[in-house]
Amino acid sequence: MSRVNDVVTKTQTPKGTVDLMPEEAWKRQFMENVFVSVFESWGYQQIRTPTFEYFNALATGTGVELQDSMFVFQDKSGRLLALRPENTASIARVAATKFLVAPRPIRLYYIAPMFRYDEPQAGRQREFWQAGTELIGAPGAEGDAETICVFIDAFQSLGLKDLKGDIGHVGLFLSIVEASKISWDEADILRRLIDKKDFNGLEKALVDVNCSEEFKEVFRKLPYLRGEKEVINDLGELIESNKFPEINANIENLIKAYDLLIDYEVEDIIALDLGIVRGLDYYTGTVFEAYIPEFGLAIGGGGRYDNLIGEFRTSVGVGSEKIDATGFSIGIDRTLIALEKQGFEIPKRPPSFMLIWLDDSLRKIALKTSRNLRKNGFVVISEVRGRKLSSALDYANKLNVTAAILFGKKEVEKGKVAVKNMKTGEQEEVILSKIVEYLSKI
Amino acid sequence: MSRVNDVVTKTQTPKGTVDLMPEEAWKRQFMENVFVSVFESWGYQQIRTPTFEYFNALATGTGVELQDSMFVFQDKSGRLLALRPENTASIARVAATKFLVAPRPIRLYYIAPMFRYDEPQAGRQREFWQAGTELIGAPGAEGDAETICVFIDAFQSLGLKDLKGDIGHVGLFLSIVEASKISWDEADILRRLIDKKDFNGLEKALVDVNCSEEFKEVFRKLPYLRGEKEVINDLGELIESNKFPEINANIENLIKAYDLLIDYEVEDIIALDLGIVRGLDYYTGTVFEAYIPEFGLAIGGGGRYDNLIGEFRTSVGVGSEKIDATGFSIGIDRTLIALEKQGFEIPKRPPSFMLIWLDDSLRKIALKTSRNLRKNGFVVISEVRGRKLSSALDYANKLNVTAAILFGKKEVEKGKVAVKNMKTGEQEEVILSKIVEYLSKI
Repeated sequence: MSRVNDVVTKTQTPKGTVDLMPEEAWKRQFMENVFVSVFESWGYQQIRTPTFEYFNALATGTGVELQDSMFVFQDKSGRLLALRPENTASIARVAATKFLVAPRPIRLYYIAPMFRYDEPQAGRQREFWQAGTELIGAPGAEGDAETICVFIDAFQSLGLKDLKGDIGHVGLFLSIVEASKISWDEADILRRLIDKKDFNGLEKALVDVNCSEEFKEVFRKLPYLRGEKEVINDLGELIESNKFPEINANIENLIKAYDLLIDYEVEDIIALDLGIVRGLDYYTGTVFEAYIPEFGLAIGGGGRYDNLIGEFRTSVGVGSEKIDATGFSIGIDRTLIALEKQGFEIPKRPPSFMLIWLDDSLRKIALKTSRNLRKNGFVVISEVRGRKLSSALDYANKLNVTAAILFGKKEVEKGKVAVKNMKTGEQEEVILSKIVEYLSKI
Repeated sequence: MSRVNDVVTKTQTPKGTVDLMPEEAWKRQFMENVFVSVFESWGYQQIRTPTFEYFNALATGTGVELQDSMFVFQDKSGRLLALRPENTASIARVAATKFLVAPRPIRLYYIAPMFRYDEPQAGRQREFWQAGTELIGAPGAEGDAETICVFIDAFQSLGLKDLKGDIGHVGLFLSIVEASKISWDEADILRRLIDKKDFNGLEKALVDVNCSEEFKEVFRKLPYLRGEKEVINDLGELIESNKFPEINANIENLIKAYDLLIDYEVEDIIALDLGIVRGLDYYTGTVFEAYIPEFGLAIGGGGRYDNLIGEFRTSVGVGSEKIDATGFSIGIDRTLIALEKQGFEIPKRPPSFMLIWLDDSLRKIALKTSRNLRKNGFVVISEVRGRKLSSALDYANKLNVTAAILFGKKEVEKGKVAVKNMKTGEQEEVILSKIVEYLSKI
């Protein structure tokens, strides 16, 4: 290996990975704490699946695109392993194998790094963090609506503003495909173009598609059908949906979810968008995406995937029962970018105090005091370089410490310490037994 | 791939990895919260390095054993990547490249999964969780003592009892090796045998070692030198240490650290053990290990590694300056085993409440109430399967819910709801505007 290569591999992180320095890690801690408390307030419980799994498990129900993006390696028996590219497949595996008799619905959440070998872009590294929930065993619109509301609650509890959520329906799209009698290959081409709102591409693709003009017009219009409940009527004008019970059922499911969301009082945030037919291949029903219009930044999404858990159950011979499931994932890195663009200030770290003993004979009482302060919730940093006072105070200053607690012989003999306020420079003698109360006030 | 293999890889996790189910994940959350609050109370700040890095970076300063245990794979340019087997090398890399002008000491901590391709054993899977700190730029005994005290504080704050910590000194061992004039290969063989307290193996190995009888006696006795400060005198009787200034300096460093630990009032927990000369190759000074004697279970360890950061700095051409550093890692999985063996009960989840509306016309007011309750810190689980009341209550019971909040027409018209206590079965009408106060009391 060349010398240059050696330096790179020894001192840099691989492309698409980053060191989250203390400032960054603090922001993540704040966000994760908010997510934990929101998810738990809805009754969701944390689950942690392995960072790597068998490729076969992670690939279940997903498309070629996701499979191609996995970091893949082998165990010593040659079995293919991969870093998880997302968490839903793993949780579906758990639901299929370990929650067989659990009362339903089951509510689960995760906050963890995911891995995809894609070209890095803003807010999307090769190692990136996601937070999400899965609601298993809640059929229909009620499950969809709760999932969408937890999703919105998570963003709003962070303090994110101008959030918009678009709601589509993969099941509706699939039932239109079936009614139109086009092939699944044709459907997949149309799905991608519709989801990207690639109007020109869609127009060209429709020329060769083998279906009636009526259905071509439906596919052509789908990406335009965005708004409130009237878009459902607009679709109704294009198809006589009562001729197609499957289409009808999906429309009714979407209307019911929308009505529920009105009762949840999130109607200002959401819109229906029948052109949203998300990529991950396991979706079967209502799907949704969140973004901040000003930044054009997608920050999360999810949807219903009623067949995925069944795929794992078939493997264990339980039968291919359909198991209702819906969930979402939030891109934590992108959400942080959005928060910061909005000028949001992550809460500061709590105040910290610097402990300095001016003579080794005072070390024991100083350390005892620091133990007491820490037990009372204070952040106390000890001087451990044996520096002279001015250097230690200089360090305290650079660390933005609130005050230094100085143990000098004269003061300690009087049962006191000197507390130097690092902002004002003022120094005060404080009775040692009252130090907790004193520091609480500055 | 065979059918059996396909089922295994689709439904099981790879050997040495586990799904942490909600019950387990809850325990981890509790432990991690304790670690975060202890580490931050000492002024340490969180850092997150990538889950995988260049093999070259992760292998820096470590021995063949650790290198052989890494999960290794390649990027698309053929560069060797690996899952991190521990976090110290990565943090040393960060310290060498990104903290060049930061005021010292730098205090960092991490809580994260690590990966080693070893034979799984109790409390040590191939993916396992560690929490640890690194104190960079604090030379000598003061840095050692603080690190050991944070380490002890973390265990004690969890509620772990009967903790013991043994303190050795790799630097002292290395200076004895140098004075004895044995080869580094011989030293490495002796180190392993001494560290394992393999007395027979050590006796046999000493036959062929090329040094004076005086030093053979020193190596023979090292694993027996365990206790309080008298073990230093015992060593002194074996070597005329004042003939060897390096040995002398290390002895003085160890005595000073021990005296500091007495001032920290942890002398009941710690013992000196000159036979502890830990495995990871980067240690240079004081080293330590914690365990619960009753279970013979090592639950963490650490030590001083003053050369490791310099190895990364040499790579960037900054020169091979020695940079003082010391740290520890706690095995979270094993610590949990120890806690549970001691009968420790992880705090229960907070009480939860089940929200049931008996008519869709009451959905909106029920959802509004649930929003208000969640904002006030309550865990509220909605009935989203549209079940009849008895089934919904049955579910609430299985979930161990504290009370069900029932929205019925008659009650809501009076501005009330019915609250059914799931433990006692009693049902009471509660004024809706007083629901927060009411639920706070049960």
